[in-house]
Amino acid sequence: MFETMRWLPGEECLELLDQTKLPVEISYIKCSDYRAVASAIKCLAVRGAPAIGAAAAYGLVLAAGRAGANTKEEILALVEAAARELAATRPTAVNLNWALTRLTKKAHDADTGDPVVLRGLLLEEAHAVFREDASGNRRIGEYGQGFIPQNGRVLTHCNAGALATAGYGTALGVIRAARDAGKNVSVYADETRPLLQGARLTTLELLQENIPVTLITDNMAGFLMAKGMVDLVIVGADRIASNGDVANKIGTYGLAVIAKAHNIPFYVAAPFSTVDLSLQAGDEIPIEERDHTEVTHHGGRLLAPVGVKVWNPAFDVTPHHLVTAIITDRGVVRPPYHENLKKTI
Amino acid sequence: MFETMRWLPGEECLELLDQTKLPVEISYIKCSDYRAVASAIKCLAVRGAPAIGAAAAYGLVLAAGRAGANTKEEILALVEAAARELAATRPTAVNLNWALTRLTKKAHDADTGDPVVLRGLLLEEAHAVFREDASGNRRIGEYGQGFIPQNGRVLTHCNAGALATAGYGTALGVIRAARDAGKNVSVYADETRPLLQGARLTTLELLQENIPVTLITDNMAGFLMAKGMVDLVIVGADRIASNGDVANKIGTYGLAVIAKAHNIPFYVAAPFSTVDLSLQAGDEIPIEERDHTEVTHHGGRLLAPVGVKVWNPAFDVTPHHLVTAIITDRGVVRPPYHENLKKTI
Repeated sequence: MFETMRWLPGEECLELLDQTKLPVEISYIKCSDYRAVASAIKCLAVRGAPAIGAAAAYGLVLAAGRAGANTKEEILALVEAAARELAATRPTAVNLNWALTRLTKKAHDADTGDPVVLRGLLLEEAHAVFREDASGNRRIGEYGQGFIPQNGRVLTHCNAGALATAGYGTALGVIRAARDAGKNVSVYADETRPLLQGARLTTLELLQENIPVTLITDNMAGFLMAKGMVDLVIVGADRIASNGDVANKIGTYGLAVIAKAHNIPFYVAAPFSTVDLSLQAGDEIPIEERDHTEVTHHGGRLLAPVGVKVWNPAFDVTPHHLVTAIITDRGVVRPPYHENLKKTI
Repeated sequence: MFETMRWLPGEECLELLDQTKLPVEISYIKCSDYRAVASAIKCLAVRGAPAIGAAAAYGLVLAAGRAGANTKEEILALVEAAARELAATRPTAVNLNWALTRLTKKAHDADTGDPVVLRGLLLEEAHAVFREDASGNRRIGEYGQGFIPQNGRVLTHCNAGALATAGYGTALGVIRAARDAGKNVSVYADETRPLLQGARLTTLELLQENIPVTLITDNMAGFLMAKGMVDLVIVGADRIASNGDVANKIGTYGLAVIAKAHNIPFYVAAPFSTVDLSLQAGDEIPIEERDHTEVTHHGGRLLAPVGVKVWNPAFDVTPHHLVTAIITDRGVVRPPYHENLKKTI
């Protein structure tokens, strides 16, 4: 699989895979300024809650490296200003804030006045965020793969794969781990309108891994389940409230309702950094609304009459009672989530 | 609104609005042979169960008008061969068969050996199919509009409007009638992947009528209902079994399940010619599967990796227990449908 992001040590810059161009074109965006990282997050060149957390962490490294900052205070000021800007790019995924807070705290707590040493500490921390996400994904895979039976047919929504993380993936990590455990797993991928992360990214990852995948439009999932063609659903998450309510890509909620109606288990796979214990319930999660042209246009081509009104929320909230289990890098959490998520810390 | 189809008496040909080009281009396909009608039905230039029934009826008129047929027997042979070909274009909508059977019977029963008179009778019958559909739609509107409250917010799927019928529409006919009854009705239109009939056609019809419409992707319907933004759902139908199971555009079933979970009424609006009393239940309805490129491409542009496997059923089946009422041109039918549909004949 392509690398979602890579730090170029000699050039002191971050390269981000431009996922808006996949699967047609493989190209990387070179970011030598944190604002380029912010733009890449905004336009979804890099996307997926864990991946934007890691990208933002590297963004703060770039902010700290700006010329003219020679004291700890000056660097801290740059880092905090950049963190505010990066945090504002996308409101729903909490991993972004989690990573920014982690690096800002590292800078604050650093016991050094040397700007070069301080920047080195921040880069180390960004690498740690990235590395820990990749290893966390492996643990999610190990913890979760037991839920997939031999010959299991899994439905997934959006892309919660290597491309959405530092590598391996959350929902797709569980699928990879099941395959690696010798199971003959096959996948149905919702195309995931409006931006088609399922059609463009999930299918690409699975084809590259030789895991059988069938693409469907989002509105086919119900009929697929009614025909008995799905054994379980696994999706990722952008933010999980302390009661287990899950914000994830728009369409997840409808899938969960239909899965429940068919008694099909519905799993959420996410690193614990996606859990926001400061929120009681999902209705407190800010839901990003994106530009109308994402729905009315594709590739510059108009799909609808000029001037039509559009509603375009990028995420929805699935209430905890529809979630069979949450598979995290710290283990599987089962209901009642308001008790068991806290115990998992 | 544009005419879905029109018979040109001087030229003895049928013009069909090319709905694949809407909303960008308004153009008509001239059919002087039934095979052109069959092609137009296959490629969805004309679509919607009632509209393809009417188009097929005119197709048989064109078949009967072929040069070289000078006896009733010769004309009958042409008509029957054309009916077989037209019936094979799309398997799910029963109105197609209903119209073809009606015209074939008319030819059989005709008490004339004069080819000109016979052709005249068939044209008259095709006009009757068309006219009756348009007037039936008005009755559907009258019977159904009472279900829409003042300030009612209606969710609809695909296009069951003037463009899907001889005019006025079924689901959209109910909405038009509610507006004409002085109600301040507003509509959410599912875009309806893969062919975007909602985004392209339903929005166009409603914008032209100045009925407020908001376009959403299909996977947003669940979140919309969860947020309390929908009062009722109305869709059309392609075939209704005698127990009230409804085949309609793919995605209808999922909508019905989610509506049920929110106690939102779910109405089906269709002429009685859509009811197939020969079938006990929805699982007997043949479901058309269409070409994979409908999902993987848009406007010639590739949306997914080359070679990915696709499942592309054009319709699904909504079981009767999810349907609040069926609004027909013969009145509103309520559960138990297996009793009440038969009574409605």
